[in-house]
Amino acid sequence: MEHSSTAAETADTLERVRRGSPLVHNIINYVAMDVAANALLAIGASPVMAHALDEMRDFVAIAGALTVNIGTLSPPWVEAMLVATAAAAELGKPWVLDPVGVGATPYRTGVARELAGRRPTVIRGNASEILVLAGDRATRTKGVDSTRAADEARDAARALARAAGCTVAVTGAVDYVTDGASALAVANGHVMMTRITALGCTATALVGACLAVGVAPVAAAAHALAILGACGEIAARDAAGPGSLRWRIMDALYQIDGDTLRRTARVERVEV
Amino acid sequence: MEHSSTAAETADTLERVRRGSPLVHNIINYVAMDVAANALLAIGASPVMAHALDEMRDFVAIAGALTVNIGTLSPPWVEAMLVATAAAAELGKPWVLDPVGVGATPYRTGVARELAGRRPTVIRGNASEILVLAGDRATRTKGVDSTRAADEARDAARALARAAGCTVAVTGAVDYVTDGASALAVANGHVMMTRITALGCTATALVGACLAVGVAPVAAAAHALAILGACGEIAARDAAGPGSLRWRIMDALYQIDGDTLRRTARVERVEV
Amino acid sequence: MEHSSTAAETADTLERVRRGSPLVHNIINYVAMDVAANALLAIGASPVMAHALDEMRDFVAIAGALTVNIGTLSPPWVEAMLVATAAAAELGKPWVLDPVGVGATPYRTGVARELAGRRPTVIRGNASEILVLAGDRATRTKGVDSTRAADEARDAARALARAAGCTVAVTGAVDYVTDGASALAVANGHVMMTRITALGCTATALVGACLAVGVAPVAAAAHALAILGACGEIAARDAAGPGSLRWRIMDALYQIDGDTLRRTARVERVEV
Repeated sequence: MEHSSTAAETADTLERVRRGSPLVHNIINYVAMDVAANALLAIGASPVMAHALDEMRDFVAIAGALTVNIGTLSPPWVEAMLVATAAAAELGKPWVLDPVGVGATPYRTGVARELAGRRPTVIRGNASEILVLAGDRATRTKGVDSTRAADEARDAARALARAAGCTVAVTGAVDYVTDGASALAVANGHVMMTRITALGCTATALVGACLAVGVAPVAAAAHALAILGACGEIAARDAAGPGSLRWRIMDALYQIDGDTLRRTARVERVEV
Repeated sequence: MEHSSTAAETADTLERVRRGSPLVHNIINYVAMDVAANALLAIGASPVMAHALDEMRDFVAIAGALTVNIGTLSPPWVEAMLVATAAAAELGKPWVLDPVGVGATPYRTGVARELAGRRPTVIRGNASEILVLAGDRATRTKGVDSTRAADEARDAARALARAAGCTVAVTGAVDYVTDGASALAVANGHVMMTRITALGCTATALVGACLAVGVAPVAAAAHALAILGACGEIAARDAAGPGSLRWRIMDALYQIDGDTLRRTARVERVEV
Repeated sequence: MEHSSTAAETADTLERVRRGSPLVHNIINYVAMDVAANALLAIGASPVMAHALDEMRDFVAIAGALTVNIGTLSPPWVEAMLVATAAAAELGKPWVLDPVGVGATPYRTGVARELAGRRPTVIRGNASEILVLAGDRATRTKGVDSTRAADEARDAARALARAAGCTVAVTGAVDYVTDGASALAVANGHVMMTRITALGCTATALVGACLAVGVAPVAAAAHALAILGACGEIAARDAAGPGSLRWRIMDALYQIDGDTLRRTARVERVEV
């Protein structure tokens, strides 16, 4: 059986993360901290969760990548996000923005737009979030869950990528990743994953791990999504519900190897 | 076999939550965020955890219900609780108070009393917490775990319900829910559930989900407790300890259906 | 088969925790709250997680022990740590310091040194952390994971114990606990435990539980580490990865008994 070159590249990225064990600094919401930290450890990366203003620059300096997630934002945390992203820009560190729930409230939308304007390396969100960030004022975000299918958001992703000068990953049944010039679609995952909180945030943290070992942004985002999605598929085989799915995903992230990914990663080059 | 009408009503409530997928906004302690968010998702509701003052009113406005849990309270969070509960009153949204550990410290007791005075729709607590809120100054709360059996607190629940003009749910081996005019007892649950942190908080979040789909307060509280308790019983059958019990409860919340609840929910009308 | 006296003492400590069900107050990082609270409940203790300045003294007063963990520190939390540790000193309550990630940033190092100077009963850290606290300026902490083997840090542990007037537990493949006058080594544990976030923090919380029932500091720290390590070994037998390892550890903490510990605890008196 022949494997796709994109699946082989996904396997290569996994192996680089395992070898590199990169430090990923996450300013991340309270709900996601446990699952995201455990996912990073399971795949072989090294997580830091910290948000004190006085140590933001220092952690960005020793980290391979930064992720910024606004899920449970508040003014002191937003201040830390601004300092950390400024440090990332200055020090040339890649960083990922997860605009959780943008559109749900004006405060959240304002903060997400401010951060999106600071040249993140990658923005990862669901369809609603990407539509809002791209300027679709008609989109109503229902809390933090997406109300539109990912494929409806491809136009928005492309527009946002070009406007923000970054890579945009819009996740859903099929994920779409683009920098405005090239694009990858990722068809891994399982619908039961939507019943586990903070798996989107976890995907963002894994994108950080892939960026931290030097993978280019479109590939890093697509590979992280493919790895998590493939692990979700493996986990779902024996899961009776989201409780068992969650720990089985952690086991799968720990066990998955390049050969498995070469067979199962469904990453495809698509039209921008 | 004939089923009770209260069990059938519990099943109806579950089906309404599944169909309605209500947005529940939780201002909840750090320890409980993960398990409560996952429980809401598992049962089919949609959780938001947010606490920034600048978005409290907006989240209450789009949510079907609010829950306020003081477990890891601090002044900025208390301020958010006050704004959110004022918005709930103004917008006519039901809200649930979880007075975690009230009685353990004067600060906590003061905040809990202040919130209890703002006409929550439901107050859910263990026996010690309800006794303290009802004014029993002799009760010593030992941290956040109850030191008295739930049935000792029925008088206190009734008095508090009448004084605060709300429904009070006191949980324990048998739960008791009353608004001062009618009462339901719930006999579901398993003793090993007391060895999982934040399951009481999770019960509170589920009460929010039942209120959010329009179920009346006494029924909403009793049905949420019966659903969680029935899932705990199912989970306990194969659990070797609280670690496996927890994920099995999540699986059970995802899988449980109306037929199972009609057979297993032990909700009974009792004297007030 | 003859069992060691130290294993028998470990079993005694477990039984004291089970009988005493001590209240342990934890000022602990967001990532660790869930797993540490669940571990304390699983073993039979009663956790409180609280950090509001206005209730710090009150919680220390009713708790059997305090643990202070700087993982996700920020100025308001540090202020609470200072008030709580002052109260512990005044009220004669034992307290444990977990200097998570000390050395990673100057802010963190400053706070950890300040707390270490306030006569904690026990300091528990990995090799990097203990080396930094003992004054080894050459050690670079890589985020929150140790970059040196525990046995390299024994000199540092001894020096720190003497300088700070406390017990120091340095954890790794073999843990080493000393107060400068006597020492115990603990050889329990499993390498896969390093892939679960906050298990070190959980160990610290369990040290708090053992101190809270009156066990002397060197023994309390060694016994807590042996209990968690022995549970990790039991859990690892059937774990396919860190996801299943975590809940199996919770089950093991709930199930483990004195007989099992007398057979499996590998605690040894060693040269200081």
